[in-house]
Amino acid sequence: MIETLEVSVSGQGLFAFTDQVKSLVTRSHIQTGLCTLFIQHTSASLLIQENYDPSAQHDLERWINRLVPERDPLYTHTLEGDDDMPAHIKAALTATSLGIPVLKGQLALGTWQGIYLWEHRKAAQRRRIIVHLLDDAR
Amino acid sequence: MIETLEVSVSGQGLFAFTDQVKSLVTRSHIQTGLCTLFIQHTSASLLIQENYDPSAQHDLERWINRLVPERDPLYTHTLEGDDDMPAHIKAALTATSLGIPVLKGQLALGTWQGIYLWEHRKAAQRRRIIVHLLDDAR
Amino acid sequence: MIETLEVSVSGQGLFAFTDQVKSLVTRSHIQTGLCTLFIQHTSASLLIQENYDPSAQHDLERWINRLVPERDPLYTHTLEGDDDMPAHIKAALTATSLGIPVLKGQLALGTWQGIYLWEHRKAAQRRRIIVHLLDDAR
Repeated sequence: MIETLEVSVSGQGLFAFTDQVKSLVTRSHIQTGLCTLFIQHTSASLLIQENYDPSAQHDLERWINRLVPERDPLYTHTLEGDDDMPAHIKAALTATSLGIPVLKGQLALGTWQGIYLWEHRKAAQRRRIIVHLLDDAR
Repeated sequence: MIETLEVSVSGQGLFAFTDQVKSLVTRSHIQTGLCTLFIQHTSASLLIQENYDPSAQHDLERWINRLVPERDPLYTHTLEGDDDMPAHIKAALTATSLGIPVLKGQLALGTWQGIYLWEHRKAAQRRRIIVHLLDDAR
Repeated sequence: MIETLEVSVSGQGLFAFTDQVKSLVTRSHIQTGLCTLFIQHTSASLLIQENYDPSAQHDLERWINRLVPERDPLYTHTLEGDDDMPAHIKAALTATSLGIPVLKGQLALGTWQGIYLWEHRKAAQRRRIIVHLLDDAR
């Protein structure tokens, strides 16, 4: 079973969409199986990260922006904006797909784990994530 | 089919658990299918890496510790210890889930590939990995 | 269903093999399902990246070579060549497996997404990728 999620982002940073994925799992009535997420973009990523303290997300964003700065003289791919090439590099260093088991009717996330879209570009936009749900009992 | 593995770690570094995953595959009697691993933590990762020469693992650990040092003045998330924020960053740069095909009753690993838990925190602890096994013949 | 793909590389860089994966999906006649790719090497990776402008791929390669240079005095794992330890580090920072949903008989890739083998060693060689195809209708 495949569903499409859309996540609206206001610019760079982490956007939690754990609840949207949980809703899909609940509505599927799958008890045991596998949930695979795939993001259809090359300048945004998927991330499992701590959902408790916002300061960790804030530091993560600042750290990657320092590692992959804009206007690096190395870049030749510059026509699509100063944030474009850094976005491709960040996407290459992070996840495009994630596989999360489903157990007892729920995503088998750890206590502190949330699912995030990590947006690497500065403009507000809508991003698409394809969700494949496998039901072991089918 | 879902199983939970626990891996004990003594602190930072790579901890092989290939044999535990192989045992699960053998006991499942799956001939052709897919094994998906998911780690339920945000300060440790999953890694497929060379299983032959320990010097490669040693260098990998030293390299990432230089890239993501402790006590970086950039960090504001510092309450959980000097190794906490670096651990979240390292986890974001590495894998939370892995999909490994099962072929002829065995994990389809390359000759030199081992499966590792990459622990990013310094304390000894037990980590949980959820393993989903898909049997193509079921 | 499992297939093995071989991709010939001429040395470091990105090698597109989207068409080979698309052919497997077409021949499988799967309408809805999941395609999982796994690379059997620890010095090359899988990457979903922009397939439009070659300058993005070029910059990505130069950027990672600057982040993970050869002959770093930190390395002790040096017997297999100057490009070996950097290759292991790059592989650890990028993907060994990818899960891509199949929708309406096609890989659910975004408009600008291509599938690449990211070779981290300098020699020409053939690399092996194991492809697991799950048919939801089976």
